[in-house]
Amino acid sequence: MQVTGAGDRLELAERELRSPGRGEVLVRVEACGVCHSDAFTVEGWMPGIEYPRVPGHEIAGRIEAVGEDVVPWQPGQRVGVGWFGGHCGHCDPCRRGDLISCANGQVPGIAFDGGYADHVVVPQSALASIPDDLGAVDAAPLLCAGITTFNALRDSGARPGDLVAVLGIGGLGHLGVQFARRMGFEVVAIARGTGKEEQARALGAHHYVDSTATDPAEALQGLGGAATILATVTAPDAMSAVVGGLRPRGRMVVVGASADPMQIPPFALIPGSTGVVGHASGTSKDSEDTMRFSVLHDVRPTVETYPLERAAEGYARMMSGDARFRVVLTME
Amino acid sequence: MQVTGAGDRLELAERELRSPGRGEVLVRVEACGVCHSDAFTVEGWMPGIEYPRVPGHEIAGRIEAVGEDVVPWQPGQRVGVGWFGGHCGHCDPCRRGDLISCANGQVPGIAFDGGYADHVVVPQSALASIPDDLGAVDAAPLLCAGITTFNALRDSGARPGDLVAVLGIGGLGHLGVQFARRMGFEVVAIARGTGKEEQARALGAHHYVDSTATDPAEALQGLGGAATILATVTAPDAMSAVVGGLRPRGRMVVVGASADPMQIPPFALIPGSTGVVGHASGTSKDSEDTMRFSVLHDVRPTVETYPLERAAEGYARMMSGDARFRVVLTME
Amino acid sequence: MQVTGAGDRLELAERELRSPGRGEVLVRVEACGVCHSDAFTVEGWMPGIEYPRVPGHEIAGRIEAVGEDVVPWQPGQRVGVGWFGGHCGHCDPCRRGDLISCANGQVPGIAFDGGYADHVVVPQSALASIPDDLGAVDAAPLLCAGITTFNALRDSGARPGDLVAVLGIGGLGHLGVQFARRMGFEVVAIARGTGKEEQARALGAHHYVDSTATDPAEALQGLGGAATILATVTAPDAMSAVVGGLRPRGRMVVVGASADPMQIPPFALIPGSTGVVGHASGTSKDSEDTMRFSVLHDVRPTVETYPLERAAEGYARMMSGDARFRVVLTME
Amino acid sequence: MQVTGAGDRLELAERELRSPGRGEVLVRVEACGVCHSDAFTVEGWMPGIEYPRVPGHEIAGRIEAVGEDVVPWQPGQRVGVGWFGGHCGHCDPCRRGDLISCANGQVPGIAFDGGYADHVVVPQSALASIPDDLGAVDAAPLLCAGITTFNALRDSGARPGDLVAVLGIGGLGHLGVQFARRMGFEVVAIARGTGKEEQARALGAHHYVDSTATDPAEALQGLGGAATILATVTAPDAMSAVVGGLRPRGRMVVVGASADPMQIPPFALIPGSTGVVGHASGTSKDSEDTMRFSVLHDVRPTVETYPLERAAEGYARMMSGDARFRVVLTME
Repeated sequence: MQVTGAGDRLELAERELRSPGRGEVLVRVEACGVCHSDAFTVEGWMPGIEYPRVPGHEIAGRIEAVGEDVVPWQPGQRVGVGWFGGHCGHCDPCRRGDLISCANGQVPGIAFDGGYADHVVVPQSALASIPDDLGAVDAAPLLCAGITTFNALRDSGARPGDLVAVLGIGGLGHLGVQFARRMGFEVVAIARGTGKEEQARALGAHHYVDSTATDPAEALQGLGGAATILATVTAPDAMSAVVGGLRPRGRMVVVGASADPMQIPPFALIPGSTGVVGHASGTSKDSEDTMRFSVLHDVRPTVETYPLERAAEGYARMMSGDARFRVVLTME
Repeated sequence: MQVTGAGDRLELAERELRSPGRGEVLVRVEACGVCHSDAFTVEGWMPGIEYPRVPGHEIAGRIEAVGEDVVPWQPGQRVGVGWFGGHCGHCDPCRRGDLISCANGQVPGIAFDGGYADHVVVPQSALASIPDDLGAVDAAPLLCAGITTFNALRDSGARPGDLVAVLGIGGLGHLGVQFARRMGFEVVAIARGTGKEEQARALGAHHYVDSTATDPAEALQGLGGAATILATVTAPDAMSAVVGGLRPRGRMVVVGASADPMQIPPFALIPGSTGVVGHASGTSKDSEDTMRFSVLHDVRPTVETYPLERAAEGYARMMSGDARFRVVLTME
Repeated sequence: MQVTGAGDRLELAERELRSPGRGEVLVRVEACGVCHSDAFTVEGWMPGIEYPRVPGHEIAGRIEAVGEDVVPWQPGQRVGVGWFGGHCGHCDPCRRGDLISCANGQVPGIAFDGGYADHVVVPQSALASIPDDLGAVDAAPLLCAGITTFNALRDSGARPGDLVAVLGIGGLGHLGVQFARRMGFEVVAIARGTGKEEQARALGAHHYVDSTATDPAEALQGLGGAATILATVTAPDAMSAVVGGLRPRGRMVVVGASADPMQIPPFALIPGSTGVVGHASGTSKDSEDTMRFSVLHDVRPTVETYPLERAAEGYARMMSGDARFRVVLTME
Repeated sequence: MQVTGAGDRLELAERELRSPGRGEVLVRVEACGVCHSDAFTVEGWMPGIEYPRVPGHEIAGRIEAVGEDVVPWQPGQRVGVGWFGGHCGHCDPCRRGDLISCANGQVPGIAFDGGYADHVVVPQSALASIPDDLGAVDAAPLLCAGITTFNALRDSGARPGDLVAVLGIGGLGHLGVQFARRMGFEVVAIARGTGKEEQARALGAHHYVDSTATDPAEALQGLGGAATILATVTAPDAMSAVVGGLRPRGRMVVVGASADPMQIPPFALIPGSTGVVGHASGTSKDSEDTMRFSVLHDVRPTVETYPLERAAEGYARMMSGDARFRVVLTME
C-alpha cells in the first residue's frame, strides 16, 4: 500500500521484490501498526520524501532472506522493525554508542519503503528479535508506541515508588500506563473527560485526573508532585499546563511530536530544579527490551485490526483519534 | 540600608540589634554583593514581602554571637550567607535530603532582613564557612552568582572535555566561564556584540560567539553541539534561540530568572533527546564547595565596590547592566 | 526485654517511662521485628554499647506524646522507626543531604533503647508515617529488612527489564524478590538447595538457581548477565563467587553485613567495568517510600510472631536461620 | 619487532605488507607506546595468543591506505589506535551502544599484530583522529595510559571540587594526576616514599601522601574522605588498604590489572554506601576525547623514547618500573 505523492490516498500496488544487499535482510511482514507519524509520509509533512513510498514503521514478521555479511540473523527468525531503521556506525553519536541519535539514521516508511506491504527490505541493524510468546499483532505497536513510552519511562530518572503521570491516554498513553505500573511507579493517568477513566484504571493507573474538570498541575501537587510526567499528547498547550505539577527535580518527558512551541517560563523551572526533556524512541535492542518486558510483566496493546488492503481505512481511523487504542494492519 | 515599600529608594536606617534566638547566629557583615534578584525586594516583584526590609543575600562576614543549640559554629568564624537562608528539616524535600528545595525555605533580604547592613541574624543552617585565602569582597558574589553557576555546571551531566556554552557574559556568566574552564570543559562564551570577547577569552573561554552576528545555535553545531548550555541571561527569547545548539542528550540549564515564557517546540527536543532544565542555586554546603573550588582552582569575581552608604548607587549600577561584572557593598 | 551485658540472655525488666525531650517523641510499640543485627547488642558484637540495653530497630507503633519543637508529628499518628535513628543535621553528610550517612547517626536498640518494649523514645527525625492499609506486624520488617532491599534496588542503577539477581532467600531476600519483581526487573533468586524454589517463584522470581548444584555466576551469564546482584547473604565467599555473573556495567550491591573479606580480583571487574558496592539501609523518608510501595504494589513480609515476653525465643529462632522468613514480636 | 613465543625476546623481523581488507585501514606507524599489558603477549600471560605476534597498542601514525567500505577515513589522516581494536557491532553490548564492552573485541598486539612495527593494519572502528597540535610521541601514551585514566575519572561520578585520589604515580598515575587537576578536582597523589612528591605536585596534585609513612586511608579521611580513588597500581593489597579512605558514596575505580584478589569486607562498604568498581579503558571516540582534552587543557605524558630497533630495551625499562613515566618507541 503506497502513497504516490504528499496528501495522496493510500493505494495498492504491485512491486518487484528486490533481493537484500550487503548487510540487508528481507522480511515477510505479518503485521504492521499504524502510527500518527505515518502522516509524515502520507500527508507529506516532512520535506524530501521520495514518492511513491510505502509507509509503516511498526513491522512484525519473519526473515525470508539475508544479504551478504549479515550476522547473526537467519531466515525463519521472527523479527520486528520500528522507527529505528538502523545506524551508520561512523558518525559521532554512533561512535559514542548513542545509536538512536545517529546523524544518518533512516526511518522505515519515510526514508525507504516500510511495512504497509507483504515484504520489506531493511538494514540488519534495524532488526529486533520477537519473543516466542508474543504474537505479531501484539508485537507491532510495541515497536513504536511501546518502545517510545517504555524507553522514556525507564530513562526518566524516576525511581520505583515515585509518582509518575501519563498525560494523554491513547495509542502511546495506554501503553505508558501499563509500563509505568509494572515498573513500580505510583501512576496517574491524565486525560480529557471521564470516558477513559475506567480503562485507565484497569490498565494500572492508581489515580485518574480529568483535565477538563481539574487543573492537572494542581491535582499532581495534591498527590505530592510528579517525579516524571510522560507527555504523550501532541498539543503543546496541554504540555505547558502540566509542568507545574512536577515535584522538585522532576522532569516532563515529551514524546508527542509537535512543531508548535510549548510556553515554559524559566520561573516555572528554577525554584524546583525541574525540566522539560525530549526522548527519541529507541534502538532495535531497546525494542527487544520492550517486548521482553511486555512478556515478562504482562503488557499488551489494545488494538483494532484491519487487513492490509483496507490500510486507508485503518489509517483514517488512527488519525481520527477514535481508535481504541492502536490500529494494526494484518497480512493475509 | 532598607526599603520601606515596594519601589521605594534604599535608605539608611538605625535598628536595634536583636540577639540571636535558638539556632540563630549574629553575623557582623564585612561585604554584601548586589544581585539582580534584590529587585524582588526593592521593586516589590515578589508578593508578600513585609516592609521595611533590608535586602541582600550575598553576605560575607564574621560570627559575632550564637544562640542556643547552635552547633558547631563559634564566634569569630568567617562565614557567608547566600540565597539559601536555611531549611526547615521536616518537609518532604528536606527529609529526602534535597535541602535547597525546602518547601519552607526563606531567602535573606526577602523573608527576613539581609546583608545591606552592619549586622544580620540568620539561621545556623544558612551558614557557609569562608576559606582563609578568600577575602570578603571576593567571597560575597560567590555566595549567589558563584554558587548558582558552579552548582548548575557540576550538576549538568556534562563530562570533562564536553563542549559547554555560557550564554550571557555578565555577573553570572563571567563566573560561569571561569568555572567551566577549570572543570575541564571546552568553553564557548556567547554574548551580544564583540565588546566582551577579550574578557571572555581571558577568563577561560576557548571560543566566543557574538549572537548579534552569528546564529548561536548554528555556531554551536559547528563546534559539534553543546553538551550543556548554561543560560544566565534573563531574556527568554535568547534562551529559546539557542536550544538548537545542543548535541544529542544535551541540556540547556536555565538559571536566569524570568517570568516570561521560553518558546520550545517539542520537535526541537525529541530527535536528539535534548532538554531544558532549571537549576536552583544551592545550599550553604554548596557555597562552601564553590568557595573552596575558587581558591583551589583560582576563580575570582570581577567586582566594583561601593561603601554601604552608597548602596542605592551600587544597586542602580548593577541593575543598569553596565557593571563589570558584579557590585559589592563594603562595610567600614 | 533488655540485655544486661554482651552475650547475656534477653530478660524482662520494668523501667520508668521517661518523657520525650526537645525534638523527641514517645511511641507506644505495637510490633517490633527481630533482625540479625540485633546481635550487635545481644552478643555485644559492637564495641561501646552501654548496658542494660533494649534491642530492636523494626518498631511499629503509635505516637503517645511529643516533646518541645516537634513538628509536625502529633499524638495518635501511626509511626515506624528503623535502623535510621535520626540525623544530626550539622555534619558534612547531613549538610549535603546524605542523611543516612550522618557522621553522628544513632541506631535504635544499639545507641539508645529500642523496640523490644512497650514504649520507646526516639528523635523525631527517626519517624516514618505508616500507611492506613498496613498493619503493625507487616510494617515492622519493612522498616529494616524491607527498606534495605527496596532502597538498594531502586538505587542500583538497574533499569526496568534488566536482569536482577537476589542472592539469598531469607529475611531480606524474600522481600528483595518481591520488590524486584514489582519494579519491573527480570528476577533471579539464588539460594542453596531447592527447598526455597517454590516460595521464591511464588514471591515473583522468574528464575531460580540452586547454588549447590550450579555455578551461580555461570547461570547468570547463561541468562545474559545480571545488571544487579543484590547480595543479602552474610558469607563473603558466596558473594565473591557470584561477581562473575554480572553483565558489563553491572553492580553487585552488598547489604548483608560481614566483617570477613570478599576476595575480588581486579581482573574480574575491569573488562566489563563491573563493581561491588555497599548500600546503607535508608532514612525515615525512605521507610515511608518502602511502606507506600508495599501497599500500592502488594508486597508483604512472611513472618512468624511471638509475644514480647517470648523475645528470647523469637530472637533464637531468627538467629537459627530457620524462620520463614522474619520474626516479629507483638505487644499485648 | 615480534615475539615468536611466550617468554621469547623481542626480535626484528621482515614481513610482507598486507593490503587492508574490507573495513580495514593500513597505518604507517610513527610512534608506539610500551605498556605493562604488552606483557600479555611478550610473557604469554594470556592464553590463546598466536605467535609470532607483534605487540603494541599505543599506536600513533598516519593512514597510508584504506580498504573497501571504509568511511570516512582517508589516506594522509593522522590517527591513533589503542587497546580498543574495534567492535563487532552485533553482540548485545554493541547493540546497547556499550562498544568498549564488545563481546568480540580484539586488542591490537594481542589478537592481531600491533604497533611495534613500521606498519599496522587495523579495523576502521579502532581509529582515533589525532589533533594537529599533538605530536605522535605525545599522542601514543594517551591512547592507553591516557584514555584509561581520563575515561575512568570522567565516568567516576566525582563532581568538580570533590576530593580525588590517584593511587600510584607511574605511567598511568602521572597522567591521572594531570587529568584530575584539570577536571577541577581537589587532587591527592598517593605513592610509596617521597621520591615522587615534587613531580606529583608539579603535575597538579594539591596533596601528597607517602603510603610508607602514613596510613593512606586515614590520610584521606583527614582531608574529608575521597569521592573517588583511582587505583593505578597493580598490587591488590595496596588497593584494599585505601578503600577506607572513601567518603560516603565514594568509589574506588580500579584500572590497574591484577589477577590476585583484593580483600574487601562488606562492613567496609555498607555504612558509607561505598564501592569498588573496575573500568575498562575506552573506545576510539574516547581516545579522541582524551587527546582533545589534553590539547585544550595542556596535559602531556612524560616519556623516554627508544628507536624501534631497541624495543626490547624499552620494554625492559618499562617493566622495571623505573621509567619516568612512560616509554615510547619511535620509527625513524
